[in-house]
Amino acid sequence: MASISKRTASAQSFVSDPVLQMPKITQFKIGICQLKVTTEKSVNILNARNLIQVAAEQGASLILLPEMWNCPYSTDMFAKFAEDFNDLDSAPSFLMLSEVASSLGVTIIGGSIPEKDVGQLYNTCTVFGPNGELKTKHRKIHLFDMGKPLPGEVQFKESDSISAGDKPTVVDTDFGCIGIGICHDIRFPELAMSYSARGAHLICYAGAFNMSTGAALWELEQRSRAVDNQLYVASCSPSRDSASSYMIWGHSTVVGPMGEIIATTGHEEAVLIADIDYAAIQRTRESLPLKRQRRDDIYQFVDLLGYKC
Amino acid sequence: MASISKRTASAQSFVSDPVLQMPKITQFKIGICQLKVTTEKSVNILNARNLIQVAAEQGASLILLPEMWNCPYSTDMFAKFAEDFNDLDSAPSFLMLSEVASSLGVTIIGGSIPEKDVGQLYNTCTVFGPNGELKTKHRKIHLFDMGKPLPGEVQFKESDSISAGDKPTVVDTDFGCIGIGICHDIRFPELAMSYSARGAHLICYAGAFNMSTGAALWELEQRSRAVDNQLYVASCSPSRDSASSYMIWGHSTVVGPMGEIIATTGHEEAVLIADIDYAAIQRTRESLPLKRQRRDDIYQFVDLLGYKC
Repeated sequence: MASISKRTASAQSFVSDPVLQMPKITQFKIGICQLKVTTEKSVNILNARNLIQVAAEQGASLILLPEMWNCPYSTDMFAKFAEDFNDLDSAPSFLMLSEVASSLGVTIIGGSIPEKDVGQLYNTCTVFGPNGELKTKHRKIHLFDMGKPLPGEVQFKESDSISAGDKPTVVDTDFGCIGIGICHDIRFPELAMSYSARGAHLICYAGAFNMSTGAALWELEQRSRAVDNQLYVASCSPSRDSASSYMIWGHSTVVGPMGEIIATTGHEEAVLIADIDYAAIQRTRESLPLKRQRRDDIYQFVDLLGYKC
Repeated sequence: MASISKRTASAQSFVSDPVLQMPKITQFKIGICQLKVTTEKSVNILNARNLIQVAAEQGASLILLPEMWNCPYSTDMFAKFAEDFNDLDSAPSFLMLSEVASSLGVTIIGGSIPEKDVGQLYNTCTVFGPNGELKTKHRKIHLFDMGKPLPGEVQFKESDSISAGDKPTVVDTDFGCIGIGICHDIRFPELAMSYSARGAHLICYAGAFNMSTGAALWELEQRSRAVDNQLYVASCSPSRDSASSYMIWGHSTVVGPMGEIIATTGHEEAVLIADIDYAAIQRTRESLPLKRQRRDDIYQFVDLLGYKC
């Protein structure tokens, strides 16, 4: 892989990758709420609010929720549980997130809930700042339409009920530039590459991987995105409901820029707290200056909708 | 991640990704020769020949060698050990690979040796068919120029002595379309993506990761390339020489298209044999049709020198 050239060490200036802009806060605690989801929306909202509060009490200033945390994971439930963010009187999940972000002074990456908008349903993540304002929303871009199930798997076709989003999402927060992905979005390295090119420090994935792909791929794909893009990755899953026909893997996780697992959990309901320090991104990129070493004479990655944080 | 829609299973036709061309042979044994490298070139050649024969005797019909198997991994050795493939009288490593491929009737992905050509040195992989012909060569594209070493690491700057290759390499063999990478090449997802787009069934990486990045990233990066591109990955490292100042991680590995470790080894000299079955690629792509699900309205990957196997 490399040559022994100690003699060059003293003479070398360690040029890092193109300068990563650092946010106001570079060290903080992230809280991951691996929520239990029931068939009662009001119960789910109350539970989410409680666990967000627990995370904040444990020092988390950035809090991540799971995919579809207000709604059982079933195509026939999405319409019933969906909220229209333009009609706040009928959007209690949306309002709770805004209220709790404001009352606790935390930034919330709101996992996802079913969103209805002009007759369509989306699988949508809302992001709220510490004053309760909606900073952005991300609609799941890559819908999970499974092909032929592997042995033991249940068939899924998300596009039967959900429409796909049409743009990647980065959001500028007090805690840096954060890229947002929802579940199947994680399988596409291009999305994470576009976030890295846009200046992301952290990519947050809400997800509800199942038992087979969960065991095989969930952690691996998080670590891949972190290592290949030299940034932090955090994920949040619902907890497992053994009575459900859709068995969720769980295992919410925080990964550092060298692919190291900083914190992870099992399949039960849990609040996971992890320390993030963006200096680790700088150290990693100074050690392995991958961005500078890419060969744009051989291949190019094009972010068609590209913009910076 | 997905919806429960068992009702759609019976009606669904499982359209796979764009058709993967299958080679003549889809099931075979690969042999990975994790060679010990000494300071005597003639010893290294004899040893490589012997372990290639061991692999063939154990049923391997495709055999992979490590990075820089004829030469200690040190910048000041590369010129002395380099071979000019246009002057075969002075290219004993090259000739041995041709001869042993022919005499055993095996295909050899020849790891790498230092190549000299018109005053330049390259880190070059040669590929020989079972009749002994040179099918292609790959010159390492991404040279390992380290930035600031992490604690405990030795400084490297490969470009002090080696020139970089300027093209990706896929080769059509009896055992499918094989993409070639050398060590640091594995860190760039774009290269593997171009190989997948070109129809690769297998990517072979010769590599000599060191102790720190080896432990942290070697297996992870192999599994990432396999999973993201839904193909096989095989790697071959030299064995560890504890007396050397460049300590090699070892751990040659074969990974399947779901990221599963099919075979791996430790840091000692070893011949690793693994069964490969390309039906696993088909199964994986039928289950998760990622190629079809990419969003070329949002991002595009451009292989500037693209061609098929």
